[in-house]
Amino acid sequence: MRAAVMRNQRIEVDTLPDPAPGPGEVLARTLACGICGSDLHALRHADKLVEAARASGAPFVPDLSRDVVMGHEFCAEIVDFGPNTTRRIPAGRRVVSMPLLFRGTRIHGIGYSDEVPGGYGELMALSEPLLLEVPNGLATEHAATTEPMAVGVHAVAKANLGKRDVPLVVGCGPVGLAVIAGLRLAGADAIVAADYSPMRRRLAAQLGATSVVDPRERPAVDAWREVAGGRSAVIFECVGVPGLIDSIMRDAPPQARIVVAGVCMEDDRIRPMFGINKELSVQFVLGYTPEEFARTLRALAEGEIEVAPLVTGRTGVEGVADAFATLANPEAHAKILVEPWR
Amino acid sequence: MRAAVMRNQRIEVDTLPDPAPGPGEVLARTLACGICGSDLHALRHADKLVEAARASGAPFVPDLSRDVVMGHEFCAEIVDFGPNTTRRIPAGRRVVSMPLLFRGTRIHGIGYSDEVPGGYGELMALSEPLLLEVPNGLATEHAATTEPMAVGVHAVAKANLGKRDVPLVVGCGPVGLAVIAGLRLAGADAIVAADYSPMRRRLAAQLGATSVVDPRERPAVDAWREVAGGRSAVIFECVGVPGLIDSIMRDAPPQARIVVAGVCMEDDRIRPMFGINKELSVQFVLGYTPEEFARTLRALAEGEIEVAPLVTGRTGVEGVADAFATLANPEAHAKILVEPWR
Repeated sequence: MRAAVMRNQRIEVDTLPDPAPGPGEVLARTLACGICGSDLHALRHADKLVEAARASGAPFVPDLSRDVVMGHEFCAEIVDFGPNTTRRIPAGRRVVSMPLLFRGTRIHGIGYSDEVPGGYGELMALSEPLLLEVPNGLATEHAATTEPMAVGVHAVAKANLGKRDVPLVVGCGPVGLAVIAGLRLAGADAIVAADYSPMRRRLAAQLGATSVVDPRERPAVDAWREVAGGRSAVIFECVGVPGLIDSIMRDAPPQARIVVAGVCMEDDRIRPMFGINKELSVQFVLGYTPEEFARTLRALAEGEIEVAPLVTGRTGVEGVADAFATLANPEAHAKILVEPWR
Repeated sequence: MRAAVMRNQRIEVDTLPDPAPGPGEVLARTLACGICGSDLHALRHADKLVEAARASGAPFVPDLSRDVVMGHEFCAEIVDFGPNTTRRIPAGRRVVSMPLLFRGTRIHGIGYSDEVPGGYGELMALSEPLLLEVPNGLATEHAATTEPMAVGVHAVAKANLGKRDVPLVVGCGPVGLAVIAGLRLAGADAIVAADYSPMRRRLAAQLGATSVVDPRERPAVDAWREVAGGRSAVIFECVGVPGLIDSIMRDAPPQARIVVAGVCMEDDRIRPMFGINKELSVQFVLGYTPEEFARTLRALAEGEIEVAPLVTGRTGVEGVADAFATLANPEAHAKILVEPWR
């Protein structure tokens, strides 16, 4: 099969052996797979990603010195079945799945594995028990956003929002936009969102932010304060670059809860006195539960998440390297989908 | 009055004007005042303390370039009354108070103010509404530990401990010991505590730790895991030096809640990926509520906190500078009380 391969910290197109579905697995044809900011990070900071995964006892540590077919935000079509499958969902149907493959006693992270390919290739092996059928009528390109949107739904669930809380979303890239969608879904009546990019602020409003602010014009927390009155702050860090957590801790009002959904793979510096003086809490979040993943797919199918504006580009495997470069510019794109069949 | 004064980053003894109690204030004679680790920090890092207080919008920012009579862990005796006082507690009685002085429209932090003296001097002005009478039978030196013990009671309250949580206390200096006492008071059935110092481990056991560990012999988290079985981790950081939060984040089990009670006044470095990969939360805590302060005094009076082993030394104002130096050695002392009448 044709695939975009991460090799020596570059993206190359190559022809690889088709994956063979093992027991309990299906063979699936990738219909669409989103490019995630974590993939850009992984390409640039492969060594740090591996080191952090190892040091913190992560369940799987990829060997990123070997070829990796990335891509973990996919919608695919079932084409064949491995042994010991129930065929609960028949061939030809569209499915999404949490990007995990249970094979024997091991768990592979689809999209970050040097042993099983992700969605930047034409074919994948998927665990049958994890498959969720895409409801009729939900566009493939929207179904492919289930994974990134579930990240937002999960971050909001971990924030445990109360009626007295007013959220501030710092950064409106794909993670921030997913958090905004998750907040909307959770019934937040006011959502303040901040980003330097006009395009991203526009998307934030389309996905459900009730106020948007350009931090160059006024501090995000000032805009939040105006909306919140005396209510309490839940601040979502959705940027993931060094210095962001510290600057949010500096600006946060007392007793604020900070939810770190941005993925900063580098060392970071904080000033604990900001946290101490204001009794801040910092909740790091990652991923989602199976229930949250399924709930997100249902919300997409029922139009509860306004996801259409998010998908701004499409490419075949040949265009993945360029798309990675393009995504560095926040004005150009939000989410680019890889369609390996192109 | 005689007082130990912080002046040019040193402790000197000097004779100062007696404080004059204003409206709603009493004049009180200091009977005993504990030396707090924060005072040692403040002496060394006065500039950073001021900078952090200012940058994070703290309610009062001391001018530490001017003379400061430190001391905020005190038990005192009422000797006179300012105007507009109710004399609810008569002269001659012993009192404790949260270390705040409400004067006009301002709040002074007693012990960190260049305008009102703290307990390292013979006399203080205290806000009458904040006074709590020391119950008969509670020793003055134990009443003086109300403030540091309330810090532990508060940290435990913020941790919101459930039946499925097993606490690990990292660092058994005064803050760690107060947290252990607070955990005991909250009914924790297992309390794991770690410190390099044999004396502090002994004190930890006396205050209520059920397991103590020397991190030189085995990682604290390993000792915790043995006790906790499958239960979840609440880890109290009670050291307050750079690197501690990061090392706890590295070693913590997934989903652990970290409560930062140690006061690190310097910049710190963390690796966010540890937090992200394990969905850690970090709750910074400071101080206590008036209810927690009063609850702590009652617990001391009723013998619910085994505080006697904590007080290991006493000195007059002349000995404060030496005591600061001595406290750098964890084997020598836990809590030294200043008794300015000596």
